[in-house]
Amino acid sequence: MERESSATMRIGVLTSGGDCPGLNAVIRSVVHRGTDVHGDEIIGIEDGFLGLIEGRSRPVSHDDVTGLLTLGGTILGSARVKRERIEWAVENAPTLARNLGIDALIAIGGEGTLTAAKMFSEAGLPVVGVPKTIDNDIDATDVTFGFDTAVHVATEAIDRLKTTAESHQRVMVVELMGRHTGWITLTAGMAGGAHGILIPEKPFDIEAVARMVEDRFERGKKFAIIAVAEGAAPAEGTMRFDHGAVDQYGHQTFGGIGTRLAHELEDLLGKEARPVILGHTQRGGTPTSRDRVLATRFGWHAVEAVHKGAFGHFTALRRNEIELVPIAEAVTRLKTVPVDRWAESEAIL
Amino acid sequence: MERESSATMRIGVLTSGGDCPGLNAVIRSVVHRGTDVHGDEIIGIEDGFLGLIEGRSRPVSHDDVTGLLTLGGTILGSARVKRERIEWAVENAPTLARNLGIDALIAIGGEGTLTAAKMFSEAGLPVVGVPKTIDNDIDATDVTFGFDTAVHVATEAIDRLKTTAESHQRVMVVELMGRHTGWITLTAGMAGGAHGILIPEKPFDIEAVARMVEDRFERGKKFAIIAVAEGAAPAEGTMRFDHGAVDQYGHQTFGGIGTRLAHELEDLLGKEARPVILGHTQRGGTPTSRDRVLATRFGWHAVEAVHKGAFGHFTALRRNEIELVPIAEAVTRLKTVPVDRWAESEAIL
Amino acid sequence: MERESSATMRIGVLTSGGDCPGLNAVIRSVVHRGTDVHGDEIIGIEDGFLGLIEGRSRPVSHDDVTGLLTLGGTILGSARVKRERIEWAVENAPTLARNLGIDALIAIGGEGTLTAAKMFSEAGLPVVGVPKTIDNDIDATDVTFGFDTAVHVATEAIDRLKTTAESHQRVMVVELMGRHTGWITLTAGMAGGAHGILIPEKPFDIEAVARMVEDRFERGKKFAIIAVAEGAAPAEGTMRFDHGAVDQYGHQTFGGIGTRLAHELEDLLGKEARPVILGHTQRGGTPTSRDRVLATRFGWHAVEAVHKGAFGHFTALRRNEIELVPIAEAVTRLKTVPVDRWAESEAIL
Amino acid sequence: MERESSATMRIGVLTSGGDCPGLNAVIRSVVHRGTDVHGDEIIGIEDGFLGLIEGRSRPVSHDDVTGLLTLGGTILGSARVKRERIEWAVENAPTLARNLGIDALIAIGGEGTLTAAKMFSEAGLPVVGVPKTIDNDIDATDVTFGFDTAVHVATEAIDRLKTTAESHQRVMVVELMGRHTGWITLTAGMAGGAHGILIPEKPFDIEAVARMVEDRFERGKKFAIIAVAEGAAPAEGTMRFDHGAVDQYGHQTFGGIGTRLAHELEDLLGKEARPVILGHTQRGGTPTSRDRVLATRFGWHAVEAVHKGAFGHFTALRRNEIELVPIAEAVTRLKTVPVDRWAESEAIL
Repeated sequence: MERESSATMRIGVLTSGGDCPGLNAVIRSVVHRGTDVHGDEIIGIEDGFLGLIEGRSRPVSHDDVTGLLTLGGTILGSARVKRERIEWAVENAPTLARNLGIDALIAIGGEGTLTAAKMFSEAGLPVVGVPKTIDNDIDATDVTFGFDTAVHVATEAIDRLKTTAESHQRVMVVELMGRHTGWITLTAGMAGGAHGILIPEKPFDIEAVARMVEDRFERGKKFAIIAVAEGAAPAEGTMRFDHGAVDQYGHQTFGGIGTRLAHELEDLLGKEARPVILGHTQRGGTPTSRDRVLATRFGWHAVEAVHKGAFGHFTALRRNEIELVPIAEAVTRLKTVPVDRWAESEAIL
Repeated sequence: MERESSATMRIGVLTSGGDCPGLNAVIRSVVHRGTDVHGDEIIGIEDGFLGLIEGRSRPVSHDDVTGLLTLGGTILGSARVKRERIEWAVENAPTLARNLGIDALIAIGGEGTLTAAKMFSEAGLPVVGVPKTIDNDIDATDVTFGFDTAVHVATEAIDRLKTTAESHQRVMVVELMGRHTGWITLTAGMAGGAHGILIPEKPFDIEAVARMVEDRFERGKKFAIIAVAEGAAPAEGTMRFDHGAVDQYGHQTFGGIGTRLAHELEDLLGKEARPVILGHTQRGGTPTSRDRVLATRFGWHAVEAVHKGAFGHFTALRRNEIELVPIAEAVTRLKTVPVDRWAESEAIL
Repeated sequence: MERESSATMRIGVLTSGGDCPGLNAVIRSVVHRGTDVHGDEIIGIEDGFLGLIEGRSRPVSHDDVTGLLTLGGTILGSARVKRERIEWAVENAPTLARNLGIDALIAIGGEGTLTAAKMFSEAGLPVVGVPKTIDNDIDATDVTFGFDTAVHVATEAIDRLKTTAESHQRVMVVELMGRHTGWITLTAGMAGGAHGILIPEKPFDIEAVARMVEDRFERGKKFAIIAVAEGAAPAEGTMRFDHGAVDQYGHQTFGGIGTRLAHELEDLLGKEARPVILGHTQRGGTPTSRDRVLATRFGWHAVEAVHKGAFGHFTALRRNEIELVPIAEAVTRLKTVPVDRWAESEAIL
Repeated sequence: MERESSATMRIGVLTSGGDCPGLNAVIRSVVHRGTDVHGDEIIGIEDGFLGLIEGRSRPVSHDDVTGLLTLGGTILGSARVKRERIEWAVENAPTLARNLGIDALIAIGGEGTLTAAKMFSEAGLPVVGVPKTIDNDIDATDVTFGFDTAVHVATEAIDRLKTTAESHQRVMVVELMGRHTGWITLTAGMAGGAHGILIPEKPFDIEAVARMVEDRFERGKKFAIIAVAEGAAPAEGTMRFDHGAVDQYGHQTFGGIGTRLAHELEDLLGKEARPVILGHTQRGGTPTSRDRVLATRFGWHAVEAVHKGAFGHFTALRRNEIELVPIAEAVTRLKTVPVDRWAESEAIL
């Protein structure tokens, strides 16, 4: 896999998929390491694979990345591209690379991006991947950047809710990110001391949730906080309302699971239950120090991987080291919350 | 109005109405000033006027208030009481005061509380008021505690939304507190640089909001942030959907104005529009330094007011001084956002 | 004083003196209001009066101020200029204005800047001032921007120190900004619940400070926090060490008052006392929401003042309104901490 | 090593050594898991091994740990104990355990505590360890709680310094914790984008630091941030001043390395260089979400370890799992910053 290249290179970099704090820090680090140490030229490709296909790019210099360490979002933009267009691009990979004048590509993105990166590598556009998923659901790396920031934002919200819930004897439902996996909700729920933690991996029973709240009130506790992942769902038939229903304009009644859960709990318990929907506040803004360092290290190692010729690999954190992992490993398995990790939170359920 | 009392007193303290960061800081300050300087005994009355009526109270000592400066909520609790029960309590004020063994009362609460405080004072239970409204809508004081914290939380959310909105070319709608007045939304909107600021004082035209967003995109800007107060409403007939509609279970379809606005904008603009509902995160948690100082000063001056016999008055900030204002002044006029303050935000609309 | 100008203008803007969170927010607001509403051209003058003298400037457009609301520092830079050069510049004001091609100037700075602004106005370069002092010591305005941010940073530090001081039975000394006035120390000290608050306005007695700490320990409290302004000084003869001494390299022994005070308290009390020196962390970084709004309003009103011809005036916050105040008023009196404000903190001494 | 105990137990818990955010979260978790799931009685031992020796303890119930997740410090206190007294205690371990009425002990502390824990286990007082070091220098675990919080505080300070340093063309020196290892400085330095990172593992050359700063200024950069660990030291003979010197009162001249470095750089560069000494702000206050979760998991697994009879072991994070590691492993090797980790930060030196 490895053929060292000490020569100066023209390296493309793109960001793909949903937003994630730390994207800009990876770009900055790629530029710093590439230009300062290897004398590379870094070419920023705009709007992910769309820019690759449409040949939209611009050089990114040291000055262009000043201040990026703390800046959320991505200066390169990101856009969704249909599968067919990606497939077309893979077939035309060498031409696209030639048009952009790049020798190699660093692709920062989620599972879909890494899969595409592998195909591009095999088709003649050598790619190193940097994994990006705010949900932290890529199994091959201990953690991904952005996740810590999302948990930080969610935990701060739970912290704030606790005092107001306590003073007013209320149930608070916080809806957090996580369509398919519950890592953000489990982690922020544990960090914030939520009393119920509902995740996609474990269909919940609304009656059991209501009972837990009632138990707390009977023990003299004056409030309860429920953290619920946006992808959490009731076990079939346990919620009364028809949550699939849409109104006359085609919009789902009740909004997301957070609002629906609050409505049902209010009905079941006869107590005020209020939803909080943090939405995109979890995936924007200044990254935490942990995410900045991880993103910086990923960028550093991605550049080294390019110069080593470790294409078709992506950067992964294992314990405290960054390793290069074959992309094939990344995409086989979604990292979901296992039963024994879930058990660790039960002490606070 | 003033008869000095250097004598040691038994002073009741209660918190009433919705949660507000700084309530505990007022209680702490009352205890510090009362016990340390005047040798008073401070009696905490539980759950607002409910505890007054039901005779539920406990002494609050210096040790009991350790750590309260930074703690959201109220250690005394707060509950809603029906108007009739308050009226009954006013009639029986001297008896209630005797039962609780208090010489005077410091009542921390909103407009309703201050009105009641005035009636109690006239009926023989001498009260000093401390104004509390997270909405900052009491005209007689430059600002109330809790407001700065709510604005801080809302501004942090807008800050985080900006980077993610920009990277993904989205419209974000942040629903903020404020049923009747738009101070939180105006202030956080200005602090966060929101592009649209919709408040109850000024019915909005959904088409105009959509046009502003389109103008931004045409000028090459890639996103827009709309801050909307929960009490903001469209000018009659300007929104297409019937937002008063309820579904078969009696729950309002679409949720609050934030969700509804996002739905309509998405339909009108053909661009993704996402709502964020901060809800009670705005009224809980650690107060900002400004709110802690204001709450501390209000508590300090309330105790002094009790010893001076300034009953029927409440504490107010005017420029940098705490003054005692007749309660009658407080309840005459809701402080709404005036046209010229609104104009100052137009530069960033 | 007022002659309305609806005509488009070329308005210079400069920032002068020490750093202060909110400077960039003023610049942004001037550009937004000036260019969007009045069609003005805004000329940024580099490094304060130095750029005025040396003719260094650049146009500042709407795009140039994107992101400035949250950015500390000043994009225009700031430098110290000797009094003689300022005097020379005043004499040549019309020429300098002509060279830069500006019709009027908005000067953002402290007392010295405002004094100079007045002189320039009288010499033919019409200036509107925006007051800037992190110490909040300008009497004519209720508060200045930057101050709230400094207090916020200092309060967070005191919050963190409290738990560690308590666990380890220690005395912590936090040195805060304030050479001539104690506003930051008083305000952050009250907000953080410091047990001793030492400010320049009130020379302290080291023995009294030590006694206060001992009293706390005797009452079973396990720690003490002393907030000390960098300009606070012991009453003459009350500290044992010769703090004016310099070592063989010309550097003052002991560093600042924070370090010295910790040393002396350790010697006097026989307990560990540790200094924390927050230094410039207090004057950098993202402004609080309050400072952003105040800075934005100051910028807005400064542009309006230019168009009204209110030269020789500066913007001031009075209660909740921005007023225009003759510069002469600003420079007559330093706003120091008065005795009765100090008294309000004694409950927590 | 493992003998399962499903029986209810009386488990002592103590915290030892320096402060560390997350200590209270461990205590809370031990109580939750022990009492709620196993029906254990948890006995809090005061002031670390001192309370063990002196028989000072109190039961800690579910109610006692309310609110501890977010509270810095340790409700049990911590004190230094001389080696001889520890040795005496080890010899008398069974008696001490009997006096306190405990079946097992959970000892939360650093290397010294874990060593003692091992000796107690062998002497008849069965102990499970929980590693605690803010410096993150225990090799057997990927990370320790408290470290992330310290890095977070330090990074926020660097963030704030950057804008003010840039506006005023200054050199800022931030002194961070770390007597023997540079993990906090390396990590916060990378997260904050410091331009120089000086750690104990690598003696620095003051001339090289000065040269790096000059290079930056020559390249048009207007400031530099140096992060220096309190234990970093110059290579012999490279600093001009005699930093070992003490003044006439026995206090070291110049204070710590941060102040000394700033003085020397100012002299060498002829530019203002300012020190910031964060001191104990790094080890107090609310833990980050990451530290809360790690501490909670450590407490959970420590209780399980007690019931499994895994004495003489301590909890360790490896990848994403908590494992039980023989204490002997912990104390063999200090985890220092290796050369290749250091290299990753050079891109930003």
